[in-house]
Amino acid sequence: MNFDLNEAIEVLERTPRSLEFFLSGLSDEWLACHEGEGTWNVSEVIEHLIEGEKNNWLPRLEFILQEGESKPFPSFDRYSHLNQKNARTFEDKLLEFKTIRAQNLIRLKEFVQSDSDLEASGSHPAFGVVKIRELISTWVVHDLTHMSQIVRVMAERYRSDVGPWIEYLGILKKK
Amino acid sequence: MNFDLNEAIEVLERTPRSLEFFLSGLSDEWLACHEGEGTWNVSEVIEHLIEGEKNNWLPRLEFILQEGESKPFPSFDRYSHLNQKNARTFEDKLLEFKTIRAQNLIRLKEFVQSDSDLEASGSHPAFGVVKIRELISTWVVHDLTHMSQIVRVMAERYRSDVGPWIEYLGILKKK
Repeated sequence: MNFDLNEAIEVLERTPRSLEFFLSGLSDEWLACHEGEGTWNVSEVIEHLIEGEKNNWLPRLEFILQEGESKPFPSFDRYSHLNQKNARTFEDKLLEFKTIRAQNLIRLKEFVQSDSDLEASGSHPAFGVVKIRELISTWVVHDLTHMSQIVRVMAERYRSDVGPWIEYLGILKKK
Repeated sequence: MNFDLNEAIEVLERTPRSLEFFLSGLSDEWLACHEGEGTWNVSEVIEHLIEGEKNNWLPRLEFILQEGESKPFPSFDRYSHLNQKNARTFEDKLLEFKTIRAQNLIRLKEFVQSDSDLEASGSHPAFGVVKIRELISTWVVHDLTHMSQIVRVMAERYRSDVGPWIEYLGILKKK
């Protein structure tokens, strides 16, 4: 096991700003490209990250601390952001992600102050018993997964453009 | 084909700063972790990106513009950074990458000013005829590949820590 709360927070607090620096001001073509029918573009990935901040990570953490294993926490709809119609600009979404993540990290530090808090367990609707430290580890890896997705989606756009170099580009070989 | 020089530069100019925001100040554990014997840690990936700025992308572009297809450009040793012994700190490496990338983008804009420059072709030692626009596309996707590698390497560190959530985390399923 490698989990350490402070090291996990190091990543969680960096993700929004790194994504902001990488994505803010990019041409629409980069933000709208995707890997085919039914796959997410960069903007939809950011919406999904916002949704996780609102309805997944912190709410589940609070639920576990309050309810323990007595009842399973509500399941999280990983596609709910796709049903939202709204007129936010992409820059607004980056800002919202940054803001809500910062708020959630403040709350995380309030809720989890000891090793025993990290060992507190709850009941996942599909997996059964899970611990707070597993939830926070997953939060970190979930960030990394979606950062990976963003660069993979963007790389896909140049699949034909790289010519013979495709041979050396691992990111284009996954399919 | 989706390549557009300005859009390619948008990505190339964002990579170093995004990585700086993501990686600067991280605990050594994040910077030193890797995917096993013979794989690169985050710090080695940054060294490789610096090496590419010094000996791969711009030098090859210049070589193509000067020599055309008359002689193949020198091959690039993708592992040379592993043989360098130096005492640079990780923060120095991030700064070096940012500085040399910025210089190279200035030179790129000087060298490539027209569509015909983008169509200029050279001779790759392994692939044969390649075009400037393929080289620049590859430069972009190469950035994305290594950003993907960095987050994948970091995610690997928490493989055991996420507990049953591993099921939902694509980034940990690649092996």
